Amino acid sequence: MNSLENLVTLLSRLPGIGKKSALRLAYALLKGDEEYNKLLGTAISTVKERIHLCRDCGNYTEEELCSICSSPDRDGKSLCVVEDPRDVAMIESTGEFQGRYFVLHGVLAPLDGIGPEELRLDKLLKLMEEQEAEELILATNPTMEGDSTALYIKHILKDRNIKITRIASGLPVGGDMEYADTLSISRALKGRLLY
Amino acid sequence: MNSLENLVTLLSRLPGIGKKSALRLAYALLKGDEEYNKLLGTAISTVKERIHLCRDCGNYTEEELCSICSSPDRDGKSLCVVEDPRDVAMIESTGEFQGRYFVLHGVLAPLDGIGPEELRLDKLLKLMEEQEAEELILATNPTMEGDSTALYIKHILKDRNIKITRIASGLPVGGDMEYADTLSISRALKGRLLY
Repeated sequence: MNSLENLVTLLSRLPGIGKKSALRLAYALLKGDEEYNKLLGTAISTVKERIHLCRDCGNYTEEELCSICSSPDRDGKSLCVVEDPRDVAMIESTGEFQGRYFVLHGVLAPLDGIGPEELRLDKLLKLMEEQEAEELILATNPTMEGDSTALYIKHILKDRNIKITRIASGLPVGGDMEYADTLSISRALKGRLLY
Repeated sequence: MNSLENLVTLLSRLPGIGKKSALRLAYALLKGDEEYNKLLGTAISTVKERIHLCRDCGNYTEEELCSICSSPDRDGKSLCVVEDPRDVAMIESTGEFQGRYFVLHGVLAPLDGIGPEELRLDKLLKLMEEQEAEELILATNPTMEGDSTALYIKHILKDRNIKITRIASGLPVGGDMEYADTLSISRALKGRLLY
């Protein structure tokens, strides 16, 4: 196998990159700028050495604490629980949330051996105490797995004096009722607000 | 900018990879196998050092001659002219062609300064002589640019005793007449074959 085939094979192992996309990317790299290739190559080779989990929230960071946990402007009284570091980036991009996060890095999946320990829920409880959290926003995805994980967290906190909320699910903005699934419509109805 | 943002920025400069895909890829690399990251990183960094153009056909290779030009089983009597190395891979994947290739690495575009010299047409003429080519298959894309490039090559060869053919264009297999453009239908009609 030559270098080009090797590159195509490696690229096609990336998620969402099929054989044809991998070929297109490999040729673009061949035609492109050598300096850029070296930068990208090094960035890929070294990303796992440089990045690790934030001590508090579990988001990716190069420091001991991520930029959100170390910011004096963020309010730990409000803690937002998400499945994945990407979800932090998505919520941050709205600019709506000034609290802090906790990243589960997954959802409960007992059949796959992912229980409360794997999601570091003891760490979440500790963080809630440290931050004297007053509200816990459960922002796991509105899927079967995300819902059960949210429900489980609600359950283990039932004796604590803390406000627990769940992000709304319903019709996406710009969506059309005609094309929505029944479950989203039913959630949109159940979650209706005073107008 | 931290390593992760840097990686996302670099990845999003790849063709067809937007900000969201770049983020998805970066997180996959972070979660994935360090060994694989190193292999991919090195493959990307070094691809331009290892790969260059085949002396004869201009396809990418690590040797002086590519595997097709150096194969004794391939017949240079039939030469297939393509725009891009990817086109060689596409035609090879059909297994229909046993001749040799010539890669133009582009199409004529006088306004962008791409003339006959840039496409190395003198090299094509030399290769035709060396191989005593009997048929030249013009397999540039059926686009405005590909068509004019094919026409130009036909024109400069008009006094030579060589069979010049152009790949067929028409309806794609599995396509539906209802959704085809008029030009493809008109080409399909003009290019009709005895059945």
